[in-house]
Formats: sequence, C-alpha cells, structure tokens
Amino acid sequence: MTSLPRIVIVGAGFGGLTAARALDGLAIDLTVVDRRNFHLFQPLLYQVATAGLNPSDVAWPVRGILSRQKNARVLLGEVVGIDTDAREVRLDDGRSLPYDWLILATGATHTYFGNDHWARHAPGLKRVDDATLIRRRLLLALEHAENTDDPIARRKLMTFAIVGAGPTGVELAGAIAELSKKVLAHDFRAIDTREVRVVLVEGADRVLLSFPPELSAFALAELQKKGVDVMLNTKVTGCDADGLRFGDGSALDCATVLWAAGVAASPAARWLGVAADRAGRVQVAPNLTVPGQPNIFVIGDTAAVVQDGKPVPGVAPAAKQQGHFVAKAIRAALAGKPAAQAFRYRDFGNLATIGRHSAVIDFGFVRMKGLVAWWLWGIAHVYFLIGARNRMLVATQWFFNYLSYSRAARLIVGSDAADPESR
Amino acid sequence: MTSLPRIVIVGAGFGGLTAARALDGLAIDLTVVDRRNFHLFQPLLYQVATAGLNPSDVAWPVRGILSRQKNARVLLGEVVGIDTDAREVRLDDGRSLPYDWLILATGATHTYFGNDHWARHAPGLKRVDDATLIRRRLLLALEHAENTDDPIARRKLMTFAIVGAGPTGVELAGAIAELSKKVLAHDFRAIDTREVRVVLVEGADRVLLSFPPELSAFALAELQKKGVDVMLNTKVTGCDADGLRFGDGSALDCATVLWAAGVAASPAARWLGVAADRAGRVQVAPNLTVPGQPNIFVIGDTAAVVQDGKPVPGVAPAAKQQGHFVAKAIRAALAGKPAAQAFRYRDFGNLATIGRHSAVIDFGFVRMKGLVAWWLWGIAHVYFLIGARNRMLVATQWFFNYLSYSRAARLIVGSDAADPESR
Repeated sequence: MTSLPRIVIVGAGFGGLTAARALDGLAIDLTVVDRRNFHLFQPLLYQVATAGLNPSDVAWPVRGILSRQKNARVLLGEVVGIDTDAREVRLDDGRSLPYDWLILATGATHTYFGNDHWARHAPGLKRVDDATLIRRRLLLALEHAENTDDPIARRKLMTFAIVGAGPTGVELAGAIAELSKKVLAHDFRAIDTREVRVVLVEGADRVLLSFPPELSAFALAELQKKGVDVMLNTKVTGCDADGLRFGDGSALDCATVLWAAGVAASPAARWLGVAADRAGRVQVAPNLTVPGQPNIFVIGDTAAVVQDGKPVPGVAPAAKQQGHFVAKAIRAALAGKPAAQAFRYRDFGNLATIGRHSAVIDFGFVRMKGLVAWWLWGIAHVYFLIGARNRMLVATQWFFNYLSYSRAARLIVGSDAADPESR
Repeated sequence: MTSLPRIVIVGAGFGGLTAARALDGLAIDLTVVDRRNFHLFQPLLYQVATAGLNPSDVAWPVRGILSRQKNARVLLGEVVGIDTDAREVRLDDGRSLPYDWLILATGATHTYFGNDHWARHAPGLKRVDDATLIRRRLLLALEHAENTDDPIARRKLMTFAIVGAGPTGVELAGAIAELSKKVLAHDFRAIDTREVRVVLVEGADRVLLSFPPELSAFALAELQKKGVDVMLNTKVTGCDADGLRFGDGSALDCATVLWAAGVAASPAARWLGVAADRAGRVQVAPNLTVPGQPNIFVIGDTAAVVQDGKPVPGVAPAAKQQGHFVAKAIRAALAGKPAAQAFRYRDFGNLATIGRHSAVIDFGFVRMKGLVAWWLWGIAHVYFLIGARNRMLVATQWFFNYLSYSRAARLIVGSDAADPESR
C-alpha cells in the first residue's frame, strides 16, 4: 500500500464526499478525515431545529457511504495543522497523515463579527448538535412561558428572534412561526402559542439578498402573512440573556435568539499559513489549488473562488462541482494527462422556502415563487438526500406533518448542563 | 374551575398516561406532571442505543397525546415532595399543585446495589439520554479501536460487557453482536468488527429468569449462536474504566460496560414517608391506594403489588392495566358508586427478542420461540406504539434495516463533556 499515491481529504461534507466518491476505482490510498462520523445534509438542518425531522433523517454515517469503496478509509479525527514541507496532516491525538495530494473541504462556521461572547446566547445552525440545542431552547421557552404567571416574563419567553435573513434565517423564521401558530396551537392551556412573536432581524434593506429583488419582496410579504415581524436595515449591537440591542438604541426583550447572520470559513488558511479573504476563506488559484502548493486543493465554503467578477456562492452544488473538478484533476495527473486549467461553476438555480406552501426559486432564466416552487423545493431536497432509506423516511415524515400539522420530533433531550447559556 | 375535583398524575409513562386518557370526558381538573416532555416507549429503547431507531421513533410529546383532551393540562416539572396534610405536590421551582386525588406513576430507575460510583462507567438504559449516550460509547469505542495500533488497547476497546441477562440485557447483547458482526462488517479497515467480543454477565444460573427454563435455554443457545459470550453464576464485584471484576477474583478488560441489572423504584415512597420494599416500591393496598391515604394511588413500577403470592411484574401491560383500574376507581367515586376492591393483573404473555430472527414468547398456555416468535414480537411492538406516524416510521426503518443490514441511526452526537465518564 505504501507505494500507492496517498490522497487525504479533510471534511466529509458535500465537497469532500463528492471528491472521495469520484476517486473510486483508482489505485490510490485514500483517507477521508472528519471530526464527525456522519455526512450532514445541511440544507434541511433547520427542520431538525424546528422539530420537523430527526437528526438521522438528514445525516448519514460516512463509513456507510464509503464502506464498499475499497480504496478509501474513513478516520474520525480532528485536524490541528498541516506541515506542507513534510506533506503531513497533523491530528489532535498526535498522529500524522502523510499525503501526496491534499483536499481541504472543511466547510464554514458562523461568525459573530468579533462578538464571540454572543455565541452562548445566540446559537447558530451548522451542526447537528446546534439543531438539537435550538430545538431544546425553542420548546423549553414555551414550557417556561406556560409555567409562569408573570406577564412580562411570559412575553419575553414567547418572543423568538432570528438574526440574519438569508435562506437559513428565512427558513427558520417561517418554520418557527408555523410551529407556534399551527402545530402547537392546541397543546398549551395557560398560554396561546398563536401569540408567539417571531422577529427576523436583517442589516440590509431586503431579505434573501442573494436572490433577485422581486423574489425578496415576495418572501417578505409571505413572511409577514405568516405573522413574522421583519426588521430591515437593523444592525445588532448587543446580545445577552435579555435579548438584542440595536444600532438605533432600541432593544428587543426575548429569551431565545438564533444566529443566521455571519459565515466564516474553517481555519484551513491558518493551517496553511496563506492569505484569506475577510470571511477567512483561502484565496485559491483558478484550478482550486493553493498558490505555491500545486498538490493542495481547497474547495467548498473553505475556498474563495471568483468567477466573472462575482464570488461563487457557498452552496452545496458549488461544493459538489468543485469536488468533481478536483477528483478529475487528480485522475488526470495520475494518468499523466493535462488537467483542466480553471474551475467553472454552473449555476442550476437558487432556492429557499418560507414555510408550508411557499418558496422562491431563481433559475436565472426563470423565477418561480409560491406553491409550485414549494413543491419543487421539497422534491429537490428529498432527491438530493443520500440513500433510499433517508428519502423514504423524510417523505413519510413530511407527509404526516403535512396532513396532521403535527410534529413528533419535538422531544426535549439533553440537559441544561449541555447548554452553554446555563453554564 | 376551582370547584372541579383536582386530579394530579405524576409521570407520563404507560401507567400515568393510560390513567389520564381513561379520565377523558369527566368534569375534572386534571394535571399530568413529568420531568420530560415526552412519553417513552421503553420496550424499544434498546434499539435506539444500538442505532436501529431514532429517539423520536419511540417517544411522543405528551402535549400532543393530550392536546385534544379538554380536561387535561400538561406540566413540565420535577416533583420534589408531597404534603399529604395540605394535599399538595411540591415542584422544584417552588410551586405547589393541590390535589383531591393523586396518582403516582413515576416508574423505576436502575440501581447499582449500593455501588453508585459504577454508574459513570456502566450506564443503564431507562431514558432517551441513556440510549444516545450508550450509542455514542459503542460507536466511539470502535472508532478508537480503528485508530490505535496497540493490540491490548484495541482488544479492550472491542470488548463490550452487559451486566444482567433479563430481557433488556439479552436484547442489548443480541443487538450489539449483530451491529458489530453484520451491520458494520465492511465499514472499518484496520479492525475487523466481527472480532468484537460481546459478554453478557448474569448472577443467576440462567438468562431471562422471568421466563420458563425451556425458553431460557433456547435464548442462551441463540445468544451463543450469535457469538455472545454468556457468563452465568457470575457476580460483579467491581466496575471502573478498565472493566469489570468478578466474585471469583477474575476480571474482564473492557472499555464499555452497560448496566441492565438492578431496577429500583423512583422516590415516591420517600415523598410519602411510607413503607417500601427492598427495591424501593411502595407497598400498596389491593386497590392500589397507599395505606392510610385513600386518595393516593401508586401504580406501575413504583408500586409493589402481590397477586397469588407472586409480585406483579414491572412490565408495560401491568402498568397500563393499573392505570385503567385507578381511573375506574376515580370515576366510581365521582359518581358516588362503589369501586372495585382489588386490582387483578391479567397476564397476556411475556416476550423478549434475541436479535434478528429470534425471540421467545411465554403466553402461559403456550410457549413460542424462534422466527415466528420474532415476527410476533415485531408486530406487537409496532402495534403498541402511539400514533400511526410512529408505527409507519418504525416499520419503514425496520424494513430497510432488515433488507440492507444497514443502520443509518448510528450518528455519534453530543460531546465528551456530556459523558459522565469523561468528567
């Protein structure tokens, strides 16, 4: 085995996993390293947070995905650095993984723009554990509201704020409005969950900034129809256990704040000691290699790729296309053939849902909104899930949720001790 | 509302929930208190621990179950005491719940027979969080075994011990043997999971002590066929991070120990200041009331009920029958009619599964074992799940698990910090 070319992929997200699978069949020694033992279908993670789906509906063990790929092994481990001279990836348990080619696909995390102390009050939504924590906070806030007689405390417990009106923020706001106003409407006795206030806070002058203004306007109207308070042009200047403070000096009392605002790349640039953009992404060459390191590729949310003067968006299709591109480049190099000089992102469309019966899709040449867009959104998301089992389970759950307006995944699990706010 | 008879039920398990539903339609003020917001179908919890099912497949929000029952309200809260003079249940947040009738259905927990320090090394299986912790330990042990080069450490990591060969212990042992020897067989590269050693430790001279000896012998043979090492007549005298020590002075090196041995009732007897049996259960009158407290019922695993000289077993059907009995007694009292003098347990059979394709059932008049018993076991368990959605999801998952020998629910979630062993 030692004489085979060694390829290490860090990260089993959309980019890393696509690259790994596209390298199947080659005579190589391939290692996929991830901190987690599963691949996460992040576009549906907000549904885990809002009790519509289970974690394992949107996640799939990496070992299971690659179990039949003979040239691949999977390693649960945390990368802490890269020695580009020795060509080794260093893990936190002291081990090193030598590589001939390295693919960094470590994704992104949320950023609080220098206010990291907000994190404990305003969790973001990137990992499965974030989603179960958010679900726990949402449901416990209502339980506590049911248990209190103090109208001010109750008002605060029944106010949920989401910071950032990109696709995740809009999806969360729509789903929480629905959960409280429809799903839970008959469940409580002392409180009326239809009085829950969902506030979506956005610094820009419209929601869904990555979509055309016409679809933003539609999404805004739909959110308002569902009872979401949308605050545009509003800058968050403070966040603590009492709620949010804004740039104009006003404040919002709320027990639960969710963070859907800032995205920052994982520390790949730091590991490599190379230039990063403002969001921490590695500035890669057109062929996705790191300047000066022709055997290191960076893909997905970790890479800053500019095409026709615009950044390639941090979405799953872009990461997958980059995974394919890189695998092809390695195949070409192994075969002694020339590789493609530059990655080209093909935009197949951009979609976001605003809760039951409403979504927006921007295909570029055509724009869709409303009910048909919502059905297309659902079908596309079930289609892109890994594994027939997950597709069937998600379709079954959605079918029941749709018919019954009930959500069984609303279990409060874990302990206060695991919630950073109570430490 | 204040003039209505106030009934408080503590615990939303099989007994408490059955009583609550059987009180539907009455002009009463009914409160169901539980520490958790869901009803748990405990007979399938071992499948959550062994990655066959999701938590929400076997749990259902109490609010959802009782949302249309107009006379009932649900309260998330922890009971810390009962004032029988003032007729009030005291909660940990300082509130009190006045009652005219009180039903205590608080279930049981595991006991370490005075060795509570074993708990962090050997988790039991009573709560959803136990199941996800056990799943995490099982899967992480194999990940660590894959990552180590030390053959002794690897051997220890690949040894799983289960203490107690009652139905839960037998089910866990069978499921872990299958998980390692079949489901995960192709997933690892450095280790061969078929070499995993599953050891089932039992103090008595046979497994499944509550079944007839003939079925115990069958279950033992089936376990051995699946590769489980069964140690009978073996008393555990020590348990730490290195594994188990036994009464004969020998020891077993193993990184993972699961506790399926001792069951103790919740502290209801202490709250009431009444006599308890050795397992902490309240000694109730034949009509399930507490001696001297005709308006307090104790049911399910919390009550010690003797019938024809034998204790009524701590199983779901017994708890449900007691819930019905108590609800009838209250209905009779409210109507001014005489209530039944004594509860009678009707035993409809006892069943346990030993993994795929094998189970034992004791109907009393007839005994079944093997494949047909296994199918009956599965159908019965799906049938008794609450809600059409859960039934369909569990059936779907089982169908896929059955066909593919794959288990998607094997996500490692949570953090080391949440594991008591790493504190």
